[in-house]
Amino acid sequence: MNNNPINIRVIPSLFTLANLLFGFLALALTMEGKYQLAAGLILLSTLMDGMDGKVARKLSVSSDFGYELDSLSDLVSFGVAPAILTYRSILQDQLGYWGLVFAAIFALCGAIRLARFNVLHISDYFVGVPITFAGGFMALILLFHGMLPWLIYAVLIPVLAFLMVSTFKVPKM
Amino acid sequence: MNNNPINIRVIPSLFTLANLLFGFLALALTMEGKYQLAAGLILLSTLMDGMDGKVARKLSVSSDFGYELDSLSDLVSFGVAPAILTYRSILQDQLGYWGLVFAAIFALCGAIRLARFNVLHISDYFVGVPITFAGGFMALILLFHGMLPWLIYAVLIPVLAFLMVSTFKVPKM
Repeated sequence: MNNNPINIRVIPSLFTLANLLFGFLALALTMEGKYQLAAGLILLSTLMDGMDGKVARKLSVSSDFGYELDSLSDLVSFGVAPAILTYRSILQDQLGYWGLVFAAIFALCGAIRLARFNVLHISDYFVGVPITFAGGFMALILLFHGMLPWLIYAVLIPVLAFLMVSTFKVPKM
Repeated sequence: MNNNPINIRVIPSLFTLANLLFGFLALALTMEGKYQLAAGLILLSTLMDGMDGKVARKLSVSSDFGYELDSLSDLVSFGVAPAILTYRSILQDQLGYWGLVFAAIFALCGAIRLARFNVLHISDYFVGVPITFAGGFMALILLFHGMLPWLIYAVLIPVLAFLMVSTFKVPKM
């Protein structure tokens, strides 16, 4: 396997790095006021995130390195990027710095969720809503920026933050 | 120990969450053009990052959860935040989207560095420059934004990115 010109063990990590890259670019686009494009990039990250695990299992090259890189990327793409995007595009105008508090809580709860997931080693179900779902859902409704009332975003951000750190069992699909 | 009103096991994680919070706020301040304040917050994150491990060892409450949370926070505060700040405050004007490429490479190399560190379990020395150093150093010179030639930032970003993923042994201080 190591004689391949490209080591196939790196392939899943390329999807994970694409996930991180899109999350990073979503932050850069948020700064430029391109909010819907930023939301679209976060949704692309969810696609990449769905691919890396599948590819790793298919190629039988799952690794601890891959798991670590996956968590790190998820925090940026589904914790920090949607929080900053929601704050900048909607909450800042409506709630000022309180909006930033809500956004920060979302990112912090996302980090707690990921760290807990990595040490629990439960594979049958999720404990609390996965960050990919929470961040992906925020990105999805941010695509409709300007079409939905701002209160929906202001309510969903703390609710999803709470659901991430909650101890509800969420079945895997 | 569990009879304490505050479980002392959570104390180190409060420093780690402060590290993440300052990194997150640095991103928000970068969006508002408050570049030096953002750089100052990243430097505060390096202080918090130095505290959490020390406090955990002093209280003898080091945990896998703490290690995971630490890595996650480090990527935001010392990988993503300094990269976005350098791009937005300096490189965007000078290099356009090439500046974004440099910044993205810095963040991605930071993530690779952290994931590798977590699976190597080497405690005597660092392999490659730690992300806390790389991100903290960028933040430090960003405090002098406007006083140093922009080329210094444009050169340091890829150099530090390379040094993070390099396999040089860096002695612990």
